[in-house]
Amino acid sequence: MPSQTPQPAFVLVRPQMGENIGAAARAMWNFGLDRMRIVAPRDGWPNPKAVAMASGAGRLLDEARLSPDVSDALADCSFVFATTARQRGLTKPVFSPEAAMKLAAEKITAGEKVAVMFGPERAGLENEDIAKANAIISVPVNPAYGSLNLGQCVLLTAYEWQRQVGEIEHETVDMGKASWATGVEIEKLSEHYEERLEQAGFFFPPDKATNMKVNLRNLWSRMALTNADVQMLHGVMRQMVRWKQRGED
Amino acid sequence: MPSQTPQPAFVLVRPQMGENIGAAARAMWNFGLDRMRIVAPRDGWPNPKAVAMASGAGRLLDEARLSPDVSDALADCSFVFATTARQRGLTKPVFSPEAAMKLAAEKITAGEKVAVMFGPERAGLENEDIAKANAIISVPVNPAYGSLNLGQCVLLTAYEWQRQVGEIEHETVDMGKASWATGVEIEKLSEHYEERLEQAGFFFPPDKATNMKVNLRNLWSRMALTNADVQMLHGVMRQMVRWKQRGED
Repeated sequence: MPSQTPQPAFVLVRPQMGENIGAAARAMWNFGLDRMRIVAPRDGWPNPKAVAMASGAGRLLDEARLSPDVSDALADCSFVFATTARQRGLTKPVFSPEAAMKLAAEKITAGEKVAVMFGPERAGLENEDIAKANAIISVPVNPAYGSLNLGQCVLLTAYEWQRQVGEIEHETVDMGKASWATGVEIEKLSEHYEERLEQAGFFFPPDKATNMKVNLRNLWSRMALTNADVQMLHGVMRQMVRWKQRGED
Repeated sequence: MPSQTPQPAFVLVRPQMGENIGAAARAMWNFGLDRMRIVAPRDGWPNPKAVAMASGAGRLLDEARLSPDVSDALADCSFVFATTARQRGLTKPVFSPEAAMKLAAEKITAGEKVAVMFGPERAGLENEDIAKANAIISVPVNPAYGSLNLGQCVLLTAYEWQRQVGEIEHETVDMGKASWATGVEIEKLSEHYEERLEQAGFFFPPDKATNMKVNLRNLWSRMALTNADVQMLHGVMRQMVRWKQRGED
């Protein structure tokens, strides 16, 4: 069963290589998309090479809706994007993958059925197919090169869908087993260093001592230490004290 | 010669399959990146399978800097990202590809040398490698699946680099040979239709006529017509008039 998550359908139009159909399924499922439609695949259907390549995303192939032509595949869709690698001389809005998936998300939220067409590997979509779309998606590749294959184009579009709808945290910290040091721990660390450095004659001359202590405390609190870091810094100071106490050698 | 464009270096750490090294080169060059570094490739270097796969981006392989270990590869870099598929229990900031490439662009603009490490296909980077990085990049894939290969990970990161620095137009219109109709053209179209529809008795009953005319004018101006569209609409009306003038048959 396809997921209930609202999402665009990805329509592979006359795909040629089974491997690429499988790669497209993997690319989609990596980003939580599982509604594939396939129009007139060159090598028939089902395709064992697609299944082999789809490892883990084979369900998308089993559930894919097969259509004899583009019109049939798009029959229930109210807004359709066509992906193209080059300008086609058709008067139609052209979106980046980002802007397209943003619009798709808005339309889907509003209850529309949205589809994205991907053309056959060799030549891409025919102008006749593109004429059935409301808008074009063009990936802004290096103008001097431009060599995205079907799976890569599906991957980038699916990624942008996920970016638009996902609960993506842009920056987090992988803490492992550590946790941030608490205020008390930082305070105790400051005191420990201050006490020992005082003994060691670090805060000199006396009229600068207060300022030096403030700067040191400030350093600890600015560093975003974990409790493990704090323990290690305590250990450093204890070791220096032990070394001192052992006397010169 | 690598391009002069400021950019991060992409460092492939102990890559296994030549095909994947070639695919990474293609992915990079699709988004204008051409500084590849390779650490201890499993099958030696140069690698004919990498060259075969890189079609059109082979220059990146010729110019790639080969290093025996990660430290050598990163020697000149002031900020390093490590890409990982799973949490590693190391206390380190974790960025989405988007946030990471934004930060990379800022640092590179400020004159820093930035690198991004990609691990070997089977198991990804070792914790020892990751410990040499300042931050982690994690692609937010479907938690129930997660099956990005090396080339795909390079592709998404390169795409995000391009998104951050590129002059990407998010929405444009591919106009072909057409251009938008001018106000005068829309005005003449309105007049043409209004005149003929008046003759045809369209504006009926008379007390609704003004409102009907306003709605019709509003329709034309709302439609974002090209001059070709306008010509076609003129033709439509002219044809209806001709058909009328030929008399019933």
